[in-house]
Amino acid sequence: NLSSYSLIIFSSALKNLIVRNKLNAFYFLMIFTSSGAGYHSESKAKEYKHVCKRACQRAVDRLRAGGLALEAVTAALMELEDSPFTNAGTGSNLNLSGEIECDASIMDGKSLNYGAVGALSGIKNPVLVARRLLSETQKGKLSAGRIPPCFLVGKGAEQWAISHGIPACPTEKMTTSEYQTTQNPLSASDVCLTADLCALIKIRTHLWILNDFGCLEPVGDILVAGEENNSACLDTVGVVVVDREGNVAAAVSSGGLAMKHPGRVGQAAHYGCGCWAENARDVSLYSTAVSTSGSGEHLIRTMLARECSTAMQAENAHQALLEAMQNKFISSPFLAGEDCVLGGVIVLRCCTCGEAQRSEDIQALLVEFLWSHTTESMCVGYMSAQDSKARTHISRLPPGAVAGQSLAIEGGVCRLGTVSD
Amino acid sequence: NLSSYSLIIFSSALKNLIVRNKLNAFYFLMIFTSSGAGYHSESKAKEYKHVCKRACQRAVDRLRAGGLALEAVTAALMELEDSPFTNAGTGSNLNLSGEIECDASIMDGKSLNYGAVGALSGIKNPVLVARRLLSETQKGKLSAGRIPPCFLVGKGAEQWAISHGIPACPTEKMTTSEYQTTQNPLSASDVCLTADLCALIKIRTHLWILNDFGCLEPVGDILVAGEENNSACLDTVGVVVVDREGNVAAAVSSGGLAMKHPGRVGQAAHYGCGCWAENARDVSLYSTAVSTSGSGEHLIRTMLARECSTAMQAENAHQALLEAMQNKFISSPFLAGEDCVLGGVIVLRCCTCGEAQRSEDIQALLVEFLWSHTTESMCVGYMSAQDSKARTHISRLPPGAVAGQSLAIEGGVCRLGTVSD
Repeated sequence: NLSSYSLIIFSSALKNLIVRNKLNAFYFLMIFTSSGAGYHSESKAKEYKHVCKRACQRAVDRLRAGGLALEAVTAALMELEDSPFTNAGTGSNLNLSGEIECDASIMDGKSLNYGAVGALSGIKNPVLVARRLLSETQKGKLSAGRIPPCFLVGKGAEQWAISHGIPACPTEKMTTSEYQTTQNPLSASDVCLTADLCALIKIRTHLWILNDFGCLEPVGDILVAGEENNSACLDTVGVVVVDREGNVAAAVSSGGLAMKHPGRVGQAAHYGCGCWAENARDVSLYSTAVSTSGSGEHLIRTMLARECSTAMQAENAHQALLEAMQNKFISSPFLAGEDCVLGGVIVLRCCTCGEAQRSEDIQALLVEFLWSHTTESMCVGYMSAQDSKARTHISRLPPGAVAGQSLAIEGGVCRLGTVSD
Repeated sequence: NLSSYSLIIFSSALKNLIVRNKLNAFYFLMIFTSSGAGYHSESKAKEYKHVCKRACQRAVDRLRAGGLALEAVTAALMELEDSPFTNAGTGSNLNLSGEIECDASIMDGKSLNYGAVGALSGIKNPVLVARRLLSETQKGKLSAGRIPPCFLVGKGAEQWAISHGIPACPTEKMTTSEYQTTQNPLSASDVCLTADLCALIKIRTHLWILNDFGCLEPVGDILVAGEENNSACLDTVGVVVVDREGNVAAAVSSGGLAMKHPGRVGQAAHYGCGCWAENARDVSLYSTAVSTSGSGEHLIRTMLARECSTAMQAENAHQALLEAMQNKFISSPFLAGEDCVLGGVIVLRCCTCGEAQRSEDIQALLVEFLWSHTTESMCVGYMSAQDSKARTHISRLPPGAVAGQSLAIEGGVCRLGTVSD
């Protein structure tokens, strides 16, 4: 069934990294930042790597200042949303009406609390609203015994955000500079889709008009070369973090498919589909955090984030992720009939068990980090507390592998810990 | 851990029911209809039972006319939505702005396709939109290779519905007759919630004004007696069906919590949380269909529909559901700190295996149907192709049991089949 996959273990530099830090009894962290699953040309790769690095640094700054995983994922994700190169927050894909509607969610592995927003317009950082919904949930019931919402959509979500002190942001400021609102924003019924549109939907920054035949037509010379394709459709961003206390957290944010129908909500706002984080407890030996990117509907129907998290309780993380991507995604019975299943995941798991528990005076944490994708490429960044800067990497399918049918899987392992006295 | 539970097996009337029908090689069906999880007073019970019966009949009519499970669940759910007594479609709870916003979803066990709408206003039958989204998914990709949406929310969902021929319906027609729009619809920021509101949110039909202190105040004499309480908050409706081909389907619809924040989406529009249907295949011996009702956020965070479906692959259905409700819901780690976990499920599973496969000339299907709830009561209706009318039942917690901490579990079994010559 499996056409091909590549495997690279980035462990040489990180393996056996034991940090001795007397100020903190236990201090470690690990971040993955995906700037999306799609095709990244060499020319765009540099931009994506830069964004990843900045996001990693932002999270590390928080963690170094004493912040926990939840704060770190939020900080990293805001940086990713603020970049005009990613399809999240500022620079998001436009829907059929020429508007930006964002999805975002966040999960805390410690409390297992969750917050999400869908089809949200007019807010610069959707993840901030998801984060705030999560916080409000933790405060307990509202007056009259009402349970606080964990998922808000559309205008109601925007109003909730503003009433909770999150500032509004006009759509114009969130679209990239090349974009200008047309006199005739597209409505679903107006759109006459033609083959030419295939090229159009593949670029991020567009200027559309309706031509004399009532069809979409790009205006200006902002069409980029063919090789820039696809990424605009799928560049969801996601972050997973483990903090010094061993708590995991995950978050994801997306502007959704280009030219999606207004009101369409993708995996980034779907519980169990866009992100998952669960601290170790009872039967679960490992703390796990997962974030996904790709075709929203496929990621929803396969509940890929939660499936990968569940799989990560197996002994061999690499084998488990490989099987999950193959059996629960590419060959999932929930996607029978789909010949092109596009997605990517970043996965982190850690435990204080086994090899990591070296001696009584050293508290050590074994962190395994993996990423896998069926898309042509995926950009990943990661950093530990002891790194002076983030590492980034554009993972690509092996030559000849068919996107949507093959997968790449890569990762590494590191041991972090401190002398406890 | 388990405070108490009741167990009644309604199998006497149905057991060993083998239908000989030469016209159809294989003909059977089973329907459960929940008109909500909440407290049903004796005076209201009659209304709920009537609605359940009509919905069962509607589904049976479809099945007798050759319709499959998907059509039958849709027909039954539309009947439930049209009743002003249920919190779905017409008669839905109002949100903080005095508006109706509905959630609904549907899943087909054969194709595993799924459709959902959230925070949908202005459409009489939300399940019809979910059903249409599911159908469109089955048609494959849209032009330009775009994947059709499976989940739409808010205004965009309403526009999509109308552009697909589903007629609009003004909100006034969906509110029950006692309701009149106030001059000052409530906005989230205006609302000053007081203890008095506890009573107010417990009734379905309300007329609100803001008093001089900026607080909510009921107007008129439409406040119902205390014993009518609670049900208005939680009366989601759901249906599960197995058709003559052995396909299962499930659907759910809800107006959501009374006085919810605009844009709040509950379990009824959440994949894996509101309903689940999966035909038997490979490793799964049983076809299962599940629909849930109760506190939306609790049902989302525990993914109760899918958890129950997974549990139903165990040998002992009753024991499996009991453990799922106890360990995956009441005592779920995802709801740690919640002392009152309100919900209900209807579950159906069937197989052609074991005892049912009696001889070669009789094709038989063993159907097990169960319901369980942690709410004070739940109304259930069920019917087979061979019944002339539906059976209904108000299931209640045992005396002294605490709602939200205890559970009731009941169910039955029946064997259906035909002589194949």
